[in-house]
Amino acid sequence: MILTVTLNTALDITYRVRSLQPHSSHRVSDVAERPGGKGVNVARVLAALGHEVTVTGFAGGATGEVVRDRLSAVPGLTDALVPVAGATRRTIAVADELTGDTTQLNEPGPGIEPAEWGAFLDRYEELVAGASAVALCGSLPPGVPVGAYAGLVRTARSAEVPVLLDTSGEPLRRGVAARPDVIKPNADELAELTGSHEPLRATQDARRRGARAVVASLGAAGLLAVTPEGRWRAAPPAAVRGNPTGAGDSAVAGLLSGLLEQLPWPDRLARAVALSAATVRSATAGEFDRTAYEELLGRVAVSGEFSAA
Amino acid sequence: MILTVTLNTALDITYRVRSLQPHSSHRVSDVAERPGGKGVNVARVLAALGHEVTVTGFAGGATGEVVRDRLSAVPGLTDALVPVAGATRRTIAVADELTGDTTQLNEPGPGIEPAEWGAFLDRYEELVAGASAVALCGSLPPGVPVGAYAGLVRTARSAEVPVLLDTSGEPLRRGVAARPDVIKPNADELAELTGSHEPLRATQDARRRGARAVVASLGAAGLLAVTPEGRWRAAPPAAVRGNPTGAGDSAVAGLLSGLLEQLPWPDRLARAVALSAATVRSATAGEFDRTAYEELLGRVAVSGEFSAA
Repeated sequence: MILTVTLNTALDITYRVRSLQPHSSHRVSDVAERPGGKGVNVARVLAALGHEVTVTGFAGGATGEVVRDRLSAVPGLTDALVPVAGATRRTIAVADELTGDTTQLNEPGPGIEPAEWGAFLDRYEELVAGASAVALCGSLPPGVPVGAYAGLVRTARSAEVPVLLDTSGEPLRRGVAARPDVIKPNADELAELTGSHEPLRATQDARRRGARAVVASLGAAGLLAVTPEGRWRAAPPAAVRGNPTGAGDSAVAGLLSGLLEQLPWPDRLARAVALSAATVRSATAGEFDRTAYEELLGRVAVSGEFSAA
Repeated sequence: MILTVTLNTALDITYRVRSLQPHSSHRVSDVAERPGGKGVNVARVLAALGHEVTVTGFAGGATGEVVRDRLSAVPGLTDALVPVAGATRRTIAVADELTGDTTQLNEPGPGIEPAEWGAFLDRYEELVAGASAVALCGSLPPGVPVGAYAGLVRTARSAEVPVLLDTSGEPLRRGVAARPDVIKPNADELAELTGSHEPLRATQDARRRGARAVVASLGAAGLLAVTPEGRWRAAPPAAVRGNPTGAGDSAVAGLLSGLLEQLPWPDRLARAVALSAATVRSATAGEFDRTAYEELLGRVAVSGEFSAA
């Protein structure tokens, strides 16, 4: 079982409008809802790839009930979310029909009480004991200590379970110091962590800060991986058009899936890049297009990286 | 008991953001939720004025549960909403901190099945029998016949219960023909109904179409009433600054409250204008400021209208 942790789960809502005009009124022509938060997205892709996956984190209120209800319908996915008094946040993506562009509104999420955080830590420790890998994903809700991920990384390492961390800012800085097996920052997160905007230099620096392997996602340029086994770049065959929502989460799912199958790094990276590109191409935000994934998988270019930088 | 009907109830959500910028991402700094839809707003004001009020219409899904839960906490208000399979719609008001302006996103509402509409009609007939007045408010959700309000007006008239209709477009056109006691269109709704942009002419025309009394809301200019008992204009003492959300619903509550107390028309209109202005002035969208209401009540100017137009 792969365990994914989403401390700030969400009900992701997508609205279609003709064209968003500030300070006016809009009729929404179409409403779509699905469970969200980075670790939930990772879990859905893993389940679609045929893995057994367990989701933990927090859920509460009417929005939390909708999230749990929808998760219960996903084959291969087990809901181990911890109930909280506050309501799970909503995110609203407003998609313009005219331009295809999207405007995002993200609620902050419920405050987590100390007793709720304690209940989560107990649950997490139990779940890690039965996991073959752990992914720690996304932002921290109010009330969760900023060093939370560092503690969760240490618990996984004590249990000898490989742990991937995908977050940003101070929670990433502190989490890296606890020596996770993999981190997957994007270019901005990497620059914020290291102070360097040069991807290879920044990726190497992130390793020195504690991450065993660093897989940097560089948007259309694909992935740059610096690992104890070597360095690689993996890129999709051509620029992929579409909606990048969830592309990073699909890359995380590809890395975990490849890790569990003990694939060599180049194959793990190819899988991550193909899943990510197939997510951008999908008509539904955050879902991957399986046909595109299978077609892209053999066409991802993976090359060794030998720069002296 | 006053009965208010809201066929398209809503969960009204207000987001505070620094400044809404299309095609970018926003952190919402504050989230507020309350039950909405015009008849629900009218009912809340009536309850605050000390009237016993019953709310009917439809509610469903997780959003409907939140609406019902919140309504149950309002003293003097009875929930007689009819359950439906679809989810109650959300409306999102995005308030800019920088400008104070608001951007509105309105979901369409759930489709109503024929059996659900039939269940509502049965419930409505029962409730009307015990009501001293009925208000029919707002838009029709998908699946409800466009002539719905005409039938609901006839049911109330058969039971000899005074009925106020506050809607727009074709539902208003058809509803007026069934001879409601009062309609309360705004200037745009009145122009759409009659084809005239001249308020007095349009108000008189709306009476000829079947409404016993027409109270037109003319924004900052207040109300224009054309009734069998006479014609009046009622205006607030000065232009009122603030958020106009719910001002029209507060005017409806004022008219109904005055009708039940058998106040003469000038006093009903003064109450409606003062409540409306006190709603614009309130810090919370859709609530009225009671101190402002009491202060404004004596200062509304009501004058007879004797134009030959």
